[in-house]
Amino acid sequence: MKATIERATLLRSLSHVQSVVERRNTIPILSNVLIEATSAGGLRLMATDLDLQIVDTIEAAVDTAGATTVSAHTLFDIARKLPEGSQVEITAADGKMLVTAGRARFNLGTLPRDDFPVIAEGDLPTKFELPAETLKQIIDKTRFAISTEETRYYLNGIFIHVSDEATPLLKAAATDGHRLARVTVARPEGAEGMPDVIIPRKCVAELRKLLDEVDGSVEVSLSGTKIRFGLGSAILTSKLIDGTFPDYSRVIPTANDKLLRLDPKSFKDGVDRVATIASEKTRAVKMALERDKITLSVTSPENGTAAEEVPGEYTSAGFEIGFNARYLLEILGQIEGDTVEVHLADAAAPTLIRESDTAPALYVLMPMRV
Amino acid sequence: MKATIERATLLRSLSHVQSVVERRNTIPILSNVLIEATSAGGLRLMATDLDLQIVDTIEAAVDTAGATTVSAHTLFDIARKLPEGSQVEITAADGKMLVTAGRARFNLGTLPRDDFPVIAEGDLPTKFELPAETLKQIIDKTRFAISTEETRYYLNGIFIHVSDEATPLLKAAATDGHRLARVTVARPEGAEGMPDVIIPRKCVAELRKLLDEVDGSVEVSLSGTKIRFGLGSAILTSKLIDGTFPDYSRVIPTANDKLLRLDPKSFKDGVDRVATIASEKTRAVKMALERDKITLSVTSPENGTAAEEVPGEYTSAGFEIGFNARYLLEILGQIEGDTVEVHLADAAAPTLIRESDTAPALYVLMPMRV
Repeated sequence: MKATIERATLLRSLSHVQSVVERRNTIPILSNVLIEATSAGGLRLMATDLDLQIVDTIEAAVDTAGATTVSAHTLFDIARKLPEGSQVEITAADGKMLVTAGRARFNLGTLPRDDFPVIAEGDLPTKFELPAETLKQIIDKTRFAISTEETRYYLNGIFIHVSDEATPLLKAAATDGHRLARVTVARPEGAEGMPDVIIPRKCVAELRKLLDEVDGSVEVSLSGTKIRFGLGSAILTSKLIDGTFPDYSRVIPTANDKLLRLDPKSFKDGVDRVATIASEKTRAVKMALERDKITLSVTSPENGTAAEEVPGEYTSAGFEIGFNARYLLEILGQIEGDTVEVHLADAAAPTLIRESDTAPALYVLMPMRV
Repeated sequence: MKATIERATLLRSLSHVQSVVERRNTIPILSNVLIEATSAGGLRLMATDLDLQIVDTIEAAVDTAGATTVSAHTLFDIARKLPEGSQVEITAADGKMLVTAGRARFNLGTLPRDDFPVIAEGDLPTKFELPAETLKQIIDKTRFAISTEETRYYLNGIFIHVSDEATPLLKAAATDGHRLARVTVARPEGAEGMPDVIIPRKCVAELRKLLDEVDGSVEVSLSGTKIRFGLGSAILTSKLIDGTFPDYSRVIPTANDKLLRLDPKSFKDGVDRVATIASEKTRAVKMALERDKITLSVTSPENGTAAEEVPGEYTSAGFEIGFNARYLLEILGQIEGDTVEVHLADAAAPTLIRESDTAPALYVLMPMRV
């Protein structure tokens, strides 16, 4: 194998590819990137952790076709440090890969390409396209609610399913039992009848990074066990979480009769400020609701007390309710408009938060006792 | 106590003061900042870790003079989150301190000001001034060589002493046994006859931060046991390290007869590149010197080999020598000119690195066997 690549092109591709590679691997070849120079010209870079796989195709002048695998992080570090604008020549022979650029020469250990594990995609019968912007929104508005509890592995991702309502929808949801985030978008053509899937957290994170560099549409193909995202030159393939996501729709309150309307910015700033003195453990912020008067407060045995009034519209009966400040801030961080609606029932009932009844995203937050 | 301060003024002062306060303290009051509103107007903020003390004086409208102590990190976090441009009112009474700004109110627990420990400066007979720029240079060019080995506590700081040579000098040195950095500047008036002192690492770090906000001169006062820096509105007082710094002048080679001249930028980039594949443990880079040809190389059992030729002037007998790549990079990071001189003797002897024989800084680096 022998090929010449622009350093910037190689660096960008390796930055995508290496982040799939785990820092520590018990199977040595999983630390490596598979590099394949095709006789048609161009280079294919591939990395995997056995659950998630990325393949990126880049421009290169290929002298001799061939393939090998080298340490992904080492090659990435080398590419980072090579002079800007340099041409990188890679040559693989005799179990070594030679990388040269300018006056620098690296002779790297390799592992045989035939040992490199490839995720068999199998048949992916459901195929549809989503604008990159829509996919970004779906991820950004839900991923913070993904559970990190490994024992509840079926909550360790974003749940995607479609509906057959009058206006067919594609729905994405994530929850950790304390809060739920759900986004709906129009069901794209081709998604009808797709199986319910749970996309693992790591796939979500890598996909989100790649989306920053994609314009236009993303091709999504999936079966009940695998999903594949086509993003320009990169293809991301992931196993899906083999589990049953709970029927979250039962958690979304429909009869919360107390409506509070606030400016999300001053609400968020107020929560952030009073939470300064909250203890690391509980981080509970109390909201005292009176007619058009909302008082946020925190009491900490170590630090003292904090209180702030925030402007809001509220006409129902007064009461007090507590929330985890961090959870509340994460939800408010996703509100883009200049109003946020908080639909309350009582101090112990799930609370619904959304921009309006036509907003694509809604959030459910469990209160805390304060 | 009652006073009103601009949020930006309070925040800047607290950012200086809180960084002296350790995150964990067994003595509760050491977590606190002492705030004193003087009847003359203005606020004094003070923090200490018993070895290092900072006092900062800021403008404030004082209604009622008085003093109290509150958690430094909590008050800093509050000031950070208060709205930009707001006026902060602080009121201390009945063991509490009330902080209000805009619609936010914080009621913080306090500890009595009389329990707050103050470092007795005692008599500081040596007094001189140094331009802030000079002091920055002294610190930047030596601090990286300070030892972190706690058992060699007498190396855990920058050693400062004066000489009575024909041109009197003030000399600063730091070493960890593997490398030595020394800077000399003209001896300032008032420094003659001063005792040799070792300024502890933490004092150096806090001083360096404060210097970024100071123009003009810094007033230095010291005795054999304490040092005090007057920097505009802030006064930093530190205990000195009670130990004997080794006679480092004996380590500085004077008869190294092999001279290598390089461009520090391409030398540094080359070392950085070949070091990419060095193993975490040794990080040794080999230099092979031939007539006007310098080859840097690294061999790593895990990763392979790397080599790069760097341009340089060298006319002595060829040989090979190894250095710790990180140490070499830290030294080269301090070279500002467009030439660096490396004075070598043999593969086992201390090597002298400097910009030229008139440069204020010089570095000694011990080789590694490669």
